[in-house]
Formats: sequence, C-alpha cells, structure tokens
Amino acid sequence: MTYQISLTTTRRNEFCDITNEIYRFIEQSGVSEGICTVFVPHTTAAVTINENADPDVTSDLLRKLASLIPQNDGYLHSEGNSDAHLKASLIGNSEQILIRSGKPLLGTWQGVYFTEFDGPRSRKVWISILGGETN
Amino acid sequence: MTYQISLTTTRRNEFCDITNEIYRFIEQSGVSEGICTVFVPHTTAAVTINENADPDVTSDLLRKLASLIPQNDGYLHSEGNSDAHLKASLIGNSEQILIRSGKPLLGTWQGVYFTEFDGPRSRKVWISILGGETN
Amino acid sequence: MTYQISLTTTRRNEFCDITNEIYRFIEQSGVSEGICTVFVPHTTAAVTINENADPDVTSDLLRKLASLIPQNDGYLHSEGNSDAHLKASLIGNSEQILIRSGKPLLGTWQGVYFTEFDGPRSRKVWISILGGETN
Repeated sequence: MTYQISLTTTRRNEFCDITNEIYRFIEQSGVSEGICTVFVPHTTAAVTINENADPDVTSDLLRKLASLIPQNDGYLHSEGNSDAHLKASLIGNSEQILIRSGKPLLGTWQGVYFTEFDGPRSRKVWISILGGETN
Repeated sequence: MTYQISLTTTRRNEFCDITNEIYRFIEQSGVSEGICTVFVPHTTAAVTINENADPDVTSDLLRKLASLIPQNDGYLHSEGNSDAHLKASLIGNSEQILIRSGKPLLGTWQGVYFTEFDGPRSRKVWISILGGETN
Repeated sequence: MTYQISLTTTRRNEFCDITNEIYRFIEQSGVSEGICTVFVPHTTAAVTINENADPDVTSDLLRKLASLIPQNDGYLHSEGNSDAHLKASLIGNSEQILIRSGKPLLGTWQGVYFTEFDGPRSRKVWISILGGETN
C-alpha cells in the first residue's frame, strides 16, 4: 500500500510535523506488525525524526544547518539552491518506522518531520507500509 | 519480531558497538533471508555503520563532529543539547541490514554502532527482522 | 533476492549514477510492489538520492563537503582517510526505494548515486528486493 501526503511549505527552510498523518495511514492500512517507509521524492527536501516537544529544537537545527551550509557559497549550480541539495543528502530522504499493534513504534519524544530546504513549494511525501500480520 | 538492546552509555559522546547483538538476534529469529531494521527511539542518539578495526576512526568522527557542531553555539533550546539533536538527525536514527543465510550481510570492515550524543544515559535500540524464508 | 553492482571509481571523491542498474535489477526480480534496499558494504563510501539533471549539483556537494570536512585535520587514524569515514556516516550507507508497477518510484529529478570518498577503488553495492506481489 502506498499513501501520499501533500503539503505546502511557507518558508525557505522549515520543519513540518507529519507524525499524525503517519499514525492515520498505518491505521487505515490495517497492518498490525511491519515496517513503514517514509520517502520524500524531492531533491531539496528531506525527512527526519527528532524532538516533538520544544519547537526551539527544530529552530536550532535549521539555524545551525544554515550557518554550516550557507545559501551563497560560490556554488556552480545556477539555480542557487545547492545548499538545499546538500542538506537533503545529509538529513536523508527516507525513514523507516516499526509498526507494532497497528501503531508506529516511536520513542516518547520522537516526531516525524518533513524538512523543507528550498521552499515555499508544494511537496509530496510517499508512505509505504509492508506488513506481516493484518488486523 | 522485535528485539530490544538496553545499554548504558558512560560519556557525553560515544560509539557503542552493537554488532554482536545484531548477529545474535538475527540467529534467534531463525530468519534466513530478509531485512533487519535497527531503530533508535531517542532524539539525541543515532545509529551508524562504520569501521570496526581501528578505534581511532570513531574517535576522529566524534572529535570532528564536535568541532563542526559545538555544544554551546547560541542555541535557543534551554536543555543545552541542541548539538546532540542535530548530530542525531545528521547521522540518522535507523539502519537497514540485509540478512543472508541467517547472518547480517556486512562488509569486511563494517560494524554497527549506537552513537550517543548526550550521555551518559540509559538507552534502548529496537531491532526488527522482516523475513522471507525461515530456517 | 540480492543483486550486486561492481564499479571502479576513478577519483578520490566522486558521485557514480547507479539509477539504471536499479531499474534493471527491479525488472529482473519480477517484483511488482515492494521495497528495494540499496546497501554499500564499505566504510569510506555511501549512497544518496539527489538531482539527476545538472552535474554541477553533485560537484557542489563534493566541494562543500570537502570544505566542511578536509582530508587533513589532525586526525588520529593513520590511514589518512578519517574525512571519508565521517562523510560516509553523514551521507549514510543505505537507501530505501519504493517499487510500484515493477519500477522504482522516484521523483522526477531523483537519481541514485554511489558516493566515493576515498577512491579510486573497486567497489560493490548490494541491492535487495523485498516484494509483496510478483508479476
């Protein structure tokens, strides 16, 4: 089964929490035990799992990434978004989440974030659920 | 099947070799061919696969990461561990390992490491084994 | 099913496009719907998914990575390739790709790249295909 999330980002760099959507798709799938793969089909965006409590954490992540990898840094690529391509490869464009008892098995403080590095844009996330047992 | 490793880290930044545990859980599972997913349910720790021979490699990795992403760098998050959150997202909190003939299919020099970035703490690693054939 | 790509890199740092090989192995497998895992069994190389159109992007990625993580930086490891080990852990040594209708489900601008960080060398990539339905 493949599910799609469509989202519109509003800033150049942004973390978008997609944890609730992942809960919902796993529930819809009826899969009780298996693996959920979250895949971002873009080359200037990524997906990561990180702190879901204090929004200062994701702000700190974006600010520090921008200081390590500035937007303008003598890049060859004429679109002016090589920083976003590098951030995407460093953070990575997929995540694996275990499914147990029909729910994503996440740690207490973990949320799943679509990470935009070259917005604002319309974006997609693909979610695939591979199961063993079915409810 | 899900297995759990419990470990106690002893330093703020540390690589803990969990390769032997992964061999053992794959053997216990009886799965001959499939995929092993290693998932870290924390937001200031990660998992990576790297050199298993010279311990200087993991020391170099930790030292260089600390110089790129210092603990104190004007972060907003009041817990003082935003560096650890960023390192966790960059290294990543899961790994996939192929299972063939009932063993993890790793390269000659590859070991699997739990990577602590905000220890010392009690930590967990979850291991899921998805198989085709069973011994 | 496991497939192997053998390749010979020609520079110390290099992106090698392996997208066509992945298309071919998925077609050979006869798997219509499932997950393809791409695994690099080396500790100074990695795999990433990024822009497949303008080669300036991968040049920018390599150049910026080299400026963040220089080859010589007071490392302990005597082989002089600790930079490559760190880049490998940051980019990551595996990727997951969804398979739909017997093809890899990639975004319009996505290509799959073996990333060499300590070449030139002979290298391998392992590809595992886990399927639901079979054609």
